Amino acid sequence: MTQIGIGILGGGYMGKAHSVAMAAVGAVFNTALRPRLEMICASSPESAERYRAAYGFARATDDWRLLVNDPAVEAIVIATPQETHREIAEAAFALGKPVFCEKPLGASIADSAAMVAAAEAAGVVNMTGFNYIRTPASQFARQLIAEGAIGDVTWFRGEHTEDFYADPQAPATWRTSGMANGTMGDLAPHMINAALALLGPVAEVMADVETVHAKRPGGDVTNDDQAQMMCRFESGAMGHMFFSRIATGRKMGYAYEITGTKGAIRFDQEDQNALWLYEMDGPEATRGFRKILTGPAHPDYLPFCQGPGHGTGYQDQIIIEAKDFLEAVATKTNKWPTFKDGHDVNRIVAAALASSDTKSWQDVNAF
Amino acid sequence: MTQIGIGILGGGYMGKAHSVAMAAVGAVFNTALRPRLEMICASSPESAERYRAAYGFARATDDWRLLVNDPAVEAIVIATPQETHREIAEAAFALGKPVFCEKPLGASIADSAAMVAAAEAAGVVNMTGFNYIRTPASQFARQLIAEGAIGDVTWFRGEHTEDFYADPQAPATWRTSGMANGTMGDLAPHMINAALALLGPVAEVMADVETVHAKRPGGDVTNDDQAQMMCRFESGAMGHMFFSRIATGRKMGYAYEITGTKGAIRFDQEDQNALWLYEMDGPEATRGFRKILTGPAHPDYLPFCQGPGHGTGYQDQIIIEAKDFLEAVATKTNKWPTFKDGHDVNRIVAAALASSDTKSWQDVNAF
Amino acid sequence: MTQIGIGILGGGYMGKAHSVAMAAVGAVFNTALRPRLEMICASSPESAERYRAAYGFARATDDWRLLVNDPAVEAIVIATPQETHREIAEAAFALGKPVFCEKPLGASIADSAAMVAAAEAAGVVNMTGFNYIRTPASQFARQLIAEGAIGDVTWFRGEHTEDFYADPQAPATWRTSGMANGTMGDLAPHMINAALALLGPVAEVMADVETVHAKRPGGDVTNDDQAQMMCRFESGAMGHMFFSRIATGRKMGYAYEITGTKGAIRFDQEDQNALWLYEMDGPEATRGFRKILTGPAHPDYLPFCQGPGHGTGYQDQIIIEAKDFLEAVATKTNKWPTFKDGHDVNRIVAAALASSDTKSWQDVNAF
Amino acid sequence: MTQIGIGILGGGYMGKAHSVAMAAVGAVFNTALRPRLEMICASSPESAERYRAAYGFARATDDWRLLVNDPAVEAIVIATPQETHREIAEAAFALGKPVFCEKPLGASIADSAAMVAAAEAAGVVNMTGFNYIRTPASQFARQLIAEGAIGDVTWFRGEHTEDFYADPQAPATWRTSGMANGTMGDLAPHMINAALALLGPVAEVMADVETVHAKRPGGDVTNDDQAQMMCRFESGAMGHMFFSRIATGRKMGYAYEITGTKGAIRFDQEDQNALWLYEMDGPEATRGFRKILTGPAHPDYLPFCQGPGHGTGYQDQIIIEAKDFLEAVATKTNKWPTFKDGHDVNRIVAAALASSDTKSWQDVNAF
Ligand SMILES: NC(=O)C1=CN([C@@H]2O[C@H](COP(=O)(O)OP(=O)(O)OC[C@H]3O[C@@H](n4cnc5c(N)ncnc54)[C@H](O)[C@@H]3O)[C@@H](O)[C@H]2O)C=CC1
Ligand SMILES: NC(=O)C1=CN([C@@H]2O[C@H](COP(=O)(O)OP(=O)(O)OC[C@H]3O[C@@H](n4cnc5c(N)ncnc54)[C@H](O)[C@@H]3O)[C@@H](O)[C@H]2O)C=CC1
Ligand SMILES: NC(=O)C1=CN([C@@H]2O[C@H](COP(=O)(O)OP(=O)(O)OC[C@H]3O[C@@H](n4cnc5c(N)ncnc54)[C@H](O)[C@@H]3O)[C@@H](O)[C@H]2O)C=CC1
Ligand SMILES: NC(=O)C1=CN([C@@H]2O[C@H](COP(=O)(O)OP(=O)(O)OC[C@H]3O[C@@H](n4cnc5c(N)ncnc54)[C@H](O)[C@@H]3O)[C@@H](O)[C@H]2O)C=CC1
Repeated sequence: MTQIGIGILGGGYMGKAHSVAMAAVGAVFNTALRPRLEMICASSPESAERYRAAYGFARATDDWRLLVNDPAVEAIVIATPQETHREIAEAAFALGKPVFCEKPLGASIADSAAMVAAAEAAGVVNMTGFNYIRTPASQFARQLIAEGAIGDVTWFRGEHTEDFYADPQAPATWRTSGMANGTMGDLAPHMINAALALLGPVAEVMADVETVHAKRPGGDVTNDDQAQMMCRFESGAMGHMFFSRIATGRKMGYAYEITGTKGAIRFDQEDQNALWLYEMDGPEATRGFRKILTGPAHPDYLPFCQGPGHGTGYQDQIIIEAKDFLEAVATKTNKWPTFKDGHDVNRIVAAALASSDTKSWQDVNAF
Repeated sequence: MTQIGIGILGGGYMGKAHSVAMAAVGAVFNTALRPRLEMICASSPESAERYRAAYGFARATDDWRLLVNDPAVEAIVIATPQETHREIAEAAFALGKPVFCEKPLGASIADSAAMVAAAEAAGVVNMTGFNYIRTPASQFARQLIAEGAIGDVTWFRGEHTEDFYADPQAPATWRTSGMANGTMGDLAPHMINAALALLGPVAEVMADVETVHAKRPGGDVTNDDQAQMMCRFESGAMGHMFFSRIATGRKMGYAYEITGTKGAIRFDQEDQNALWLYEMDGPEATRGFRKILTGPAHPDYLPFCQGPGHGTGYQDQIIIEAKDFLEAVATKTNKWPTFKDGHDVNRIVAAALASSDTKSWQDVNAF
Repeated sequence: MTQIGIGILGGGYMGKAHSVAMAAVGAVFNTALRPRLEMICASSPESAERYRAAYGFARATDDWRLLVNDPAVEAIVIATPQETHREIAEAAFALGKPVFCEKPLGASIADSAAMVAAAEAAGVVNMTGFNYIRTPASQFARQLIAEGAIGDVTWFRGEHTEDFYADPQAPATWRTSGMANGTMGDLAPHMINAALALLGPVAEVMADVETVHAKRPGGDVTNDDQAQMMCRFESGAMGHMFFSRIATGRKMGYAYEITGTKGAIRFDQEDQNALWLYEMDGPEATRGFRKILTGPAHPDYLPFCQGPGHGTGYQDQIIIEAKDFLEAVATKTNKWPTFKDGHDVNRIVAAALASSDTKSWQDVNAF
Repeated sequence: MTQIGIGILGGGYMGKAHSVAMAAVGAVFNTALRPRLEMICASSPESAERYRAAYGFARATDDWRLLVNDPAVEAIVIATPQETHREIAEAAFALGKPVFCEKPLGASIADSAAMVAAAEAAGVVNMTGFNYIRTPASQFARQLIAEGAIGDVTWFRGEHTEDFYADPQAPATWRTSGMANGTMGDLAPHMINAALALLGPVAEVMADVETVHAKRPGGDVTNDDQAQMMCRFESGAMGHMFFSRIATGRKMGYAYEITGTKGAIRFDQEDQNALWLYEMDGPEATRGFRKILTGPAHPDYLPFCQGPGHGTGYQDQIIIEAKDFLEAVATKTNKWPTFKDGHDVNRIVAAALASSDTKSWQDVNAF
């Protein structure tokens, strides 16, 4: 059992999730590398210290460089706002330290391009934090499609919808400005990543992006509330994606429906332990969508529980990420999804924004 | 109780449905006018006679003009293929006879424009057969939105998906040629009609229409298998619609999700007796989508059953149509949806086809 | 096409349903015998005349004997309260006229025993009105079990739950007195009939029957609000049934779950067009309950619609009953379920009431 | 931040779950006491050492007395088979060490009675491991009922059903003998505990317990495969529970339906992040069961995730248990459910077995 010193940047929503994951992952997955919670960084000394005590780190700081440079910190998890991702990652790579970075990869396509370049130049392990695709159900969906269980895919519909800004009276905050914090910047990447994982590269997009509530108490809104895009995959499949932070009633609407020539798959993250599969075989009278409950027969489930249908949750997705990151670090071999994959997502976001602006189909390869 | 002589053209899928509806509607709705099944027409004398005997008509013919001209036939139901709609309707209007015509209204926008003109010139009652919007659930959805129950609508997603051509080996037939028989021509009208009924006029569309399986055993396919369109409603709401006859696993995928600033609605025809409603009020902890089962409290349900949740079915939608048609005839006052509404649907279909061809947004008013 | 004169007793909830069914069944099922709506009877001349006009009967009466004796009335449908069933049926049998009688068969086990005896003595066609088991889904469930699709059945759970008396302030009416009008008398028969149809005879029962709200505005309640029973089928399977008219939130809770050694079936009448089937085969990873939508591949569906998933409703169940009744009459051969089957249900009701009174298991054969 | 040395007995299914929970709970809940994984015990030195390394304990042993007696072990978690619970707990209590013990509490009612006595004599913190009732959804259900949200409860239906022995060819193992390992001994306790938590004490039971497959490859089966019981709660509510390990298709069928005079609640552990609530108010037309997704508004959810609908899983239930146990230890004040609660469950199990044997209702207070 070899220890590895972990430094986490950010102690908020995701900083906590990764801290818990690093505390639990060894016991869950019996990993070769065992995380040692070395240092946590937040924007003030007080909050950093509070997080340290709460999550069980050895040390705290409000200076990210200090953390990155600390010799006991051997691997970096970036869970700070998108604007900070690039600088931190570049510094870590310069020191040859492996980096896990939360989605979206940087605040812009320029950021993510630079981050990929830095990662490749350094030749260090890097990973982007797309956790939802980690559920046993979605991993299994990916496997089913790859194995041809639903034949040739003809149609993909995906959405990432939540309702935290559904109320027009919800006040303006930092979330309501900055393209990286709008719906395209913040929510879309998860589902775009899923689309790529499940169907392969997207060739073209035609999008419509909009700010529904341009004024909110406290100020103007300068990023998007909802967006949709039609797309064409390189495989030839037709697709559509929808993203919204004003989708009243939707709490975790990461959902997809995939149609193939031999079957179909449906998934909704609000019931993340079920995958719906239709197979076009057997007598017509007994065909139907089957509700498969995840269990030990599905990827990365068994380490959480021996019983099928007992269910995994949000935090478990982060633990699965931590396992893969540690494995990549241990073997010095990247595991999917890398920074390159995070950047590919950003390219599609950029193409979609351009498409919406120009009201025309955009070739993703131009981005 | 006044009788009215009904003539039905076509004795197939819909000809039968309308025959049964005319036999049952009086008892169900205690209508002022009572249908007398006067004559049925089909393409051969043998089939016409077979339908006559089966459905209980007095007479049969294979000549539609004979039926239309017959003095005992006082109202006409057109349930023949789209190519025949126009000529029949025009003949009936010329005689001042009210006409109910199955969707789509004619085989083209030229047809439907002419049919609207003829109806208006004659000043006779006319109705287009969009049955799915007649379910108590969808009527109630319409009422909820009109009353503002979900606030201002910001997003509409609709689909009409079935899988009768999902199997690439299903042979080519008349259904696989002729734009009026493809997915846009044949399935899309139902959901476009729903969109108009629920949200009002569509201003602009941007579509992608495709033939997935261009060759089938028996010949080439010359119409579309699936199609999608982004749209903008005149109200400002953003929308998306998807249509498919190759949606493996989908049997009656007439489904919509509508988001508003105060709530949301979901419906899927595969469970046509339930409407899902989310209301953004009350404590956060008890909010959720409510599965409302239709019952006597909902439009046009009580005549079918006194018990809530006991359910109506496909045939009942046609009975509701017959009730409205008879009422329109009795009062000589059109009821929604008229030929004009059927034509408005065709205009959107035409705009969508043009959009897909030109890969550009199309203003619906130009069609 | 031979006509048959139909006389219906009662013009309320079920009187109407059977009137509509008789008006529609010929066209739907192309029956050999074609109903002629000859006469309807209700408790007052005014209501009888109102029903006559509404449902399209030739004549009306408030004297059931007059209807039964009328020579133009060739088959009888009893849709009056349970207390009236026996006398009417006996009179009809005495004249050799076939009788369809709504559930429950009479107001007591004595009634139903006498009715069976009268039917057998007369050798005339007779049928009991258990409509819910007529849905394509439940017919298919029955077929699946008979074919061994789920192996040997080990467990049955059924319920018939509604909430029309859930509100303790709902007033006392005729429904709240008389054992034939309580939950055991009025609701239980449907599900007991289903249990018998699906699994075969019940050997023993152990029940608990209770009046939850003994006082209601307007008077005392003298029959039961809810009841449960454990049972043992002759096949050896264990079972449980629950019946309630105070099941808050349940509108049409006719539902069952059946477990076998090779699979399982689930059904809920609130979504009557779906049957859930689990088959214990194929790889563990793709097993799950399959939601089968009824369609032309299932019993008695096609005559209502050519499209799968398009759905049948409550009224359609009554039309299916009418078809079977007419067929039995035409062939002078009983079809399931006969009066004998209605009486078998009553025997289990009687055994359950005795069990609840004596707090002991009761052998159904003793009733 | 005070550390506490934890000793866990058993490294299998639950030993692992508790190890992970102890590793994670501090970071998740910011607990006052922070677990130090001191020692783990399993039945052989090899397996103990393997678990130690995998879960991150400091030391391992195959002698439970050594663990219990070790001065660095300050709190004990028993996750060994039921036969071992009593002896271990008694030894720990004798040393004044707090004990968390997995369900069922001991292998018999005699065991649990002794364990309660020992706990009370020692005056030490004790807790029984009923994890399923810990989900945010079930905690919220409990709260809703306590607050009167559904009025007076009139009906409870619960089940704990799985299918790990559904296949009649699954071989006999230690699980198929010993009453503590059968369905009543092993599965029933969870749902009985839920019933008590949600509705309060059970007064009387009437049960039917059976071994469906008495022979399996490898030997005779001497404990039960499925069991049902009717019950009466002290509140007057009627109830039913069903337990099965042969419930084909059911993976984690811990499910309940609770009806009250003002509303109803439904829950199924297979979709553990949703609670269904029906409230009998507002207009009839908009009533329905509401699918509430758990989120920060519900008990013990927020520490796992800031986003509603993001979901918790099986492992999280164990983390919640660990939090409550540590809190009880820190405050030297028992938290629900204690050994007494575990014993109360066993009393009902005993009453049910007696009822099934004697085929009579049994007063729970006699056990
Ligand atoms: N994968 C997922 O499900 C989610 C991913 N995210 C992503 O995670 C990242 C962090 O988001 P949240 O945790 O929601 O934010 P948060 O606002 O909850 O936490 C941000 C943390 O970063 C710290 N921080 C901010 N600027 C800093 C600086 N310059 N130096 C050091 N510390 C600094 C703050 O003190 C705070 O602890 C973002 O990239 C976001 O897009 C966020 C939520 C969910
Ligand atoms: N509202 C709905 O749910 C549906 C609507 N439809 C519409 O109903 C119409 C009829 O379609 P189906 O019933 O499916 O077709 P079908 O092929 O089942 O029946 C067509 C009938 O028209 C008769 N017919 C054809 N050409 C004729 C002619 N020149 N003169 C006299 N009779 C002629 C045929 O003999 C046949 O009886 C179409 O417009 C179709 O789009 C079809 C299916 C469902
Ligand atoms: N299969 C099912 O789903 C249902 C079956 N039923 C059964 O149908 C039967 C009728 O019940 P509902 O239709 O609900 O009752 P209802 O109260 O709606 O109608 C009863 C009808 O019988 C008439 N009637 C009563 N006494 C009469 C008499 N002595 N002579 C002539 N007419 C008389 C009344 O005038 C009225 O028209 C009952 O046996 C009931 O259990 C009722 C509802 C649903
Ligand atoms: N709350 C829940 O969801 C569940 C609770 N349980 C309960 O947890 C307990 C353990 O069950 P599992 O983890 O499934 O069993 P298991 O068979 O997976 O593990 C049992 C462990 O106990 C050890 N052990 C057995 N006898 C021992 C002894 N005399 N001394 C020291 N170690 C010994 C074994 O080496 C093994 O590590 C049981 O009481 C069971 O009823 C089990 C599964 C689920």
